[in-house]
Amino acid sequence: MPVIHRIEDIAAALATRYEGDGAFGVSCAAEPARAQADALALAMDPKFAAGLEQGAAKAAMLWEGADWQGMGLVAAIFVPRPRYAMAGLTAMLDEGAQIAPGVHPSAVIAEGVELGAGAAIGPFVEIRDGAVIGPNAQIAAHVSIGRNTRIGADCLLHEGVRIAHSVTIGDGFIAQPGAVVGGDGFSFVTPEPGAVEAVRASLGDRDGKAQQAYARIHSLGGVVIGDSVEIGANACIDRGTIHATEIGSGTKIDNLVQVGHNVRVGRDCLLCGQVGIAGSTRLGDRVVLGGQVGVTDHLEIGDDVIAGAGTLLRTNQPKGRVMLGNPAMEMKASIEAYKGLRRLPRLAAQVADLRKHLSK
Amino acid sequence: MPVIHRIEDIAAALATRYEGDGAFGVSCAAEPARAQADALALAMDPKFAAGLEQGAAKAAMLWEGADWQGMGLVAAIFVPRPRYAMAGLTAMLDEGAQIAPGVHPSAVIAEGVELGAGAAIGPFVEIRDGAVIGPNAQIAAHVSIGRNTRIGADCLLHEGVRIAHSVTIGDGFIAQPGAVVGGDGFSFVTPEPGAVEAVRASLGDRDGKAQQAYARIHSLGGVVIGDSVEIGANACIDRGTIHATEIGSGTKIDNLVQVGHNVRVGRDCLLCGQVGIAGSTRLGDRVVLGGQVGVTDHLEIGDDVIAGAGTLLRTNQPKGRVMLGNPAMEMKASIEAYKGLRRLPRLAAQVADLRKHLSK
Amino acid sequence: MPVIHRIEDIAAALATRYEGDGAFGVSCAAEPARAQADALALAMDPKFAAGLEQGAAKAAMLWEGADWQGMGLVAAIFVPRPRYAMAGLTAMLDEGAQIAPGVHPSAVIAEGVELGAGAAIGPFVEIRDGAVIGPNAQIAAHVSIGRNTRIGADCLLHEGVRIAHSVTIGDGFIAQPGAVVGGDGFSFVTPEPGAVEAVRASLGDRDGKAQQAYARIHSLGGVVIGDSVEIGANACIDRGTIHATEIGSGTKIDNLVQVGHNVRVGRDCLLCGQVGIAGSTRLGDRVVLGGQVGVTDHLEIGDDVIAGAGTLLRTNQPKGRVMLGNPAMEMKASIEAYKGLRRLPRLAAQVADLRKHLSK
Repeated sequence: MPVIHRIEDIAAALATRYEGDGAFGVSCAAEPARAQADALALAMDPKFAAGLEQGAAKAAMLWEGADWQGMGLVAAIFVPRPRYAMAGLTAMLDEGAQIAPGVHPSAVIAEGVELGAGAAIGPFVEIRDGAVIGPNAQIAAHVSIGRNTRIGADCLLHEGVRIAHSVTIGDGFIAQPGAVVGGDGFSFVTPEPGAVEAVRASLGDRDGKAQQAYARIHSLGGVVIGDSVEIGANACIDRGTIHATEIGSGTKIDNLVQVGHNVRVGRDCLLCGQVGIAGSTRLGDRVVLGGQVGVTDHLEIGDDVIAGAGTLLRTNQPKGRVMLGNPAMEMKASIEAYKGLRRLPRLAAQVADLRKHLSK
Repeated sequence: MPVIHRIEDIAAALATRYEGDGAFGVSCAAEPARAQADALALAMDPKFAAGLEQGAAKAAMLWEGADWQGMGLVAAIFVPRPRYAMAGLTAMLDEGAQIAPGVHPSAVIAEGVELGAGAAIGPFVEIRDGAVIGPNAQIAAHVSIGRNTRIGADCLLHEGVRIAHSVTIGDGFIAQPGAVVGGDGFSFVTPEPGAVEAVRASLGDRDGKAQQAYARIHSLGGVVIGDSVEIGANACIDRGTIHATEIGSGTKIDNLVQVGHNVRVGRDCLLCGQVGIAGSTRLGDRVVLGGQVGVTDHLEIGDDVIAGAGTLLRTNQPKGRVMLGNPAMEMKASIEAYKGLRRLPRLAAQVADLRKHLSK
Repeated sequence: MPVIHRIEDIAAALATRYEGDGAFGVSCAAEPARAQADALALAMDPKFAAGLEQGAAKAAMLWEGADWQGMGLVAAIFVPRPRYAMAGLTAMLDEGAQIAPGVHPSAVIAEGVELGAGAAIGPFVEIRDGAVIGPNAQIAAHVSIGRNTRIGADCLLHEGVRIAHSVTIGDGFIAQPGAVVGGDGFSFVTPEPGAVEAVRASLGDRDGKAQQAYARIHSLGGVVIGDSVEIGANACIDRGTIHATEIGSGTKIDNLVQVGHNVRVGRDCLLCGQVGIAGSTRLGDRVVLGGQVGVTDHLEIGDDVIAGAGTLLRTNQPKGRVMLGNPAMEMKASIEAYKGLRRLPRLAAQVADLRKHLSK
C-alpha cells in the first residue's frame, strides 16, 4: 500500500510554503498531463498549465504566482528553485530498496565480520573475513565484499556490486548494480624501454623500437572513498599500486565510468557517464566532467575545472578552466575553432584563389 | 550429440532453392577452408572458391551461378541476400542456452511471483515480490529481478543480468551477461545555481561561480521496454525520475551502452558498442548510432538519423540526417572538413607567404 | 600476520644487488614519506630524498649512487630499471586472492566437469557441463562458466566473471570482476539493403533509404584466448559468428573494453580502458591502443601500431604507425593540424584581410 504524504508535510520538508488544504494527501508525483487524483502534479513552469487541465491532479507543485484556485486544485506548493525542490520531494517519495532486515540465510558472512546494527543483507551475498560494515547497511543480492574492507554507516549496495579487499569507504555510500571498486590497476612494464616510452617522450617517434612481452605490476594499494559518494552501474574504480586510489567526499560517479589506479579525485566532483580517468591523474575539488570525457594519465586537473561532453584532456588544467573538444581547448575558443573547421573548405578555396590571382 | 539438418530443410526455412541431394545432412556451418565433411560451407562469394577446394565440405551455401557439381559438392543452397540468409541459418543452428527446465533449488523466488509456463530458472537467481514473468522464460545463473517488474513471453536473461524494480518489458527480450536495467538516474542538484548552469547558459562563461555540494534527485520512474528488444553485456539503462525511461520495440542495444534517465529511444533503433545517451534525450525510430557515439542531454534526434562511429551529437538533429565527427557535421561535410584539417599546416604556410608577399 | 621478506631475498628475486643488512625484513612497500619501519621505501629517484627523511623506513629501493648510509638506512636495494623492478617486487608482496582451497559447498558444479588439482572455488559459483578447468584454478564468488568451456592452468577469475559456453582459454588467465567473455555478437540484418548499407557505400548518402526491422544473426562461434592474457573489470569480449573471436597470448585488456564479434587481436597487445573494437577487425601483434580508442569494423591494424588516447581509427593502418586524433592522423601530423585548428579563427581573419586588400 502506498504511503500518503500530506501537502503541509511536503512543504515543511522542503522548507517552503503551500496554499490551500494542507491536510490533502498524495501518494506519488507525476507529470501534470498524466497525473491521477492521488498524485502531486509537477508544474513548476507556466508551460505546464495546459497539462494540468488534461490531468486529474488535485494538488500541484507550481510556479510562483500561479492561480491554483482557478485551476481547480485543492492545494498547491510553491518552490523558489524547482530543480532543488525535486531533491527533497523525490527523497520523500522513494520507497527504498526494501531489503528484508537481517541476514538472508543463503548469505556467506565470514566469521569475525563486524556488521553494524540494522543491517539488511540479501541472498547470495559474500562478505569475507576482516570486513567491517557500519550500521544500517542495505546490501542487495549477489554483492561481494573482500577481506579487511571497511564501509561506514548507511551504505546502499545494489545487486552485484563488487567491493574488493582492503577498501575503505565512508558513510552514506551508494553503489548501483555491477559497480566494481578495487579491481587491479592496469599496470604493465616491458623489460627494456619500448616503443610506447619512446613515443611518449618524443610525441610520435618510436625510435625504431617495438614493444616486448609485458610483466605485471601488482596492485598492493587499496581504494579510499570519503562520505556521501555514489558510484554508477558497472562503473570501475581500480585499486592503487602502493598507495590507495582516492575519491573525495561528496563526489558522484555515473555509470560505466573508469577511474584508473592511483587516481585522486577531490571532493564534490561530478563524473558523468563513460568518463575515463587514466592512472595517477589528480582531480581537484568540484571538477565536473561531462559524458565520455577522457583524461590521460599523470595529469593535474585543478579545482573547479569543467569539461563538456566528449572532451579529451591530455594536458594539465589550471583551476577553473572550462574546456571542450578532442583535443580540448577553452570552451569559447573550441566553439570558434570548430566553426572555422566547418568553413575550412571554403577558406582553402579562397586561399587558392588569392594564390592564382597573385601568381598572374 | 549434434543435431543434423537436411539441406532441403535449411532451404525451406530460408525460403530459398537448393540443388543436389536435399536429404544430405549437416550439423554446423563453417568457413569454406576450415569446413569438415559435416559442415555447411559458407561461400556466398566467388572469392571463397579456393577455400572450398581446401576444405572438406560436401555441401555449401553458394553465390548465384556457382558450379557446385564441378566443385565436387553433393548439394548447394543458393541465397539472394547472403547476409540475411545468415539470420535464418544461424537461428537454426544455435543450440540455445540449455538452462534446465524448472526452478533451480538454490533460486530465491518470492512468494506471489507469477512465473509463466515453461520457465527455466538457473542457480542463484533472485526474483522479488510482485514480479510477473511470462511463459518460456530462460533465466540464467545470478540474475536478479526486482519488485513489481513485469517481463513478457520468451525472455532470455543471461548470467548476472540485473533488472531493478518497477520495470516493464515486452515479449522476446534478450539481455547479455551483466546488463543492468533500472539503475538510478545520475541526477544531482546544487542548492543555488552553480558554475555548470552558468556555463551551459553562456557556452563557456562560469560567471565567477563554483559548484556546491550535491543533493540527490531520486529516481521514482521505472523503465518501459517494448517487444523484441536486445541489450548487450554490461550495458546500462537508467530508470526515469518521474516518468519511465523508454525503449521502443525492435531496438537493439550493444555492449557497454549507457542510456540515461528519462531518455526515450524509438522503435527499431541500433545503438552500437559504448554509445552514451545523456538524460532526457529522445531518439526517433530507426536511428542508428555507431560505436562510441555520444548524444548530450535534452536533445531531439529525429527518425532515421544515422551517426558514424565516434560522433558526438550536441544539437538537435532533424529527421534523416547522416552525421559524423566530434563535434558532428553532416557526413560529407565532415569528411571534407577533416581533409582540410590535414592540409591546414600547408594552408597556414601559404597564407603566411601571401602576407609576406603583399607586405612588400 | 604479514609475511616478512628479507632484503637479500628481494634483491635475489629481482636479480639485482643490495648493500647493508641483507637479513633485514620488510612486510610491505610504501612511498618514502609515508613509510613505517616495516616498509621498503620506494625511492628510485633523487626527488624522493626529502620524503625518505620524513618517513620512518629503515630500508629502501634507491637510485643508483644514493648514499643510503648517510640517510640512516640499514639496507638498500639498487635497480637499473625501477619500473621493471616494481613488477618483481609487487609480485612478491601480493597476498593473492586467498580463496579457500577446495569447492565451496554452495557452488553448483555440473557432473562431469573436470577440475584440475589445487582448485579454490568460492561461493555461488556455477560451472556447467563439459567444462574443463586446469590445475590451481582460483575462482571467486559469483563466477559462471558455461558448457564445454576450457580454461588452462593457474587461472584467477575474480568475483562475478562470466565465461560463456564453448570458450577456450590458455594458461595464466586473469579476469577482473564482472568481465564477460563470450556474450553474443551484435549482429543484425535487415531483409533488404537499407540506409546503413547505402551510407557506408557512399560515405554519406542514404539514397532515400530507411532501415527496417532487424533479424538477429546468432553467434555460433566461441572465443579463443591464448596464454597469459588479462581482462579488466566489466570488459566484454563477444563470441564469433561462425569462427571464434581470438585474443593472442600475452595481450592485456583493461576495464570496460569492448571487443566485438569475429575480432582477432594479436599477441602482446595492450588495450587500455574503454577501448572499443568493432566486429571483424584484426589487430596485429604488439598493438597499443590508449584509453577510449575506437577502431571501426572490418579493419586491418598492422603489427606495432600505437594509437594515443581518444583516437578513432576508421581506416586500415600499416605496420608501425603511431596515430592520434578523431579522426586519426599520424601523431606528429595530428599535433600540427590541431595547433592549426586553434589558430584557425586568426587565419580566417588574415585571409579576409588579404581578400579585402586585393579587392581594392
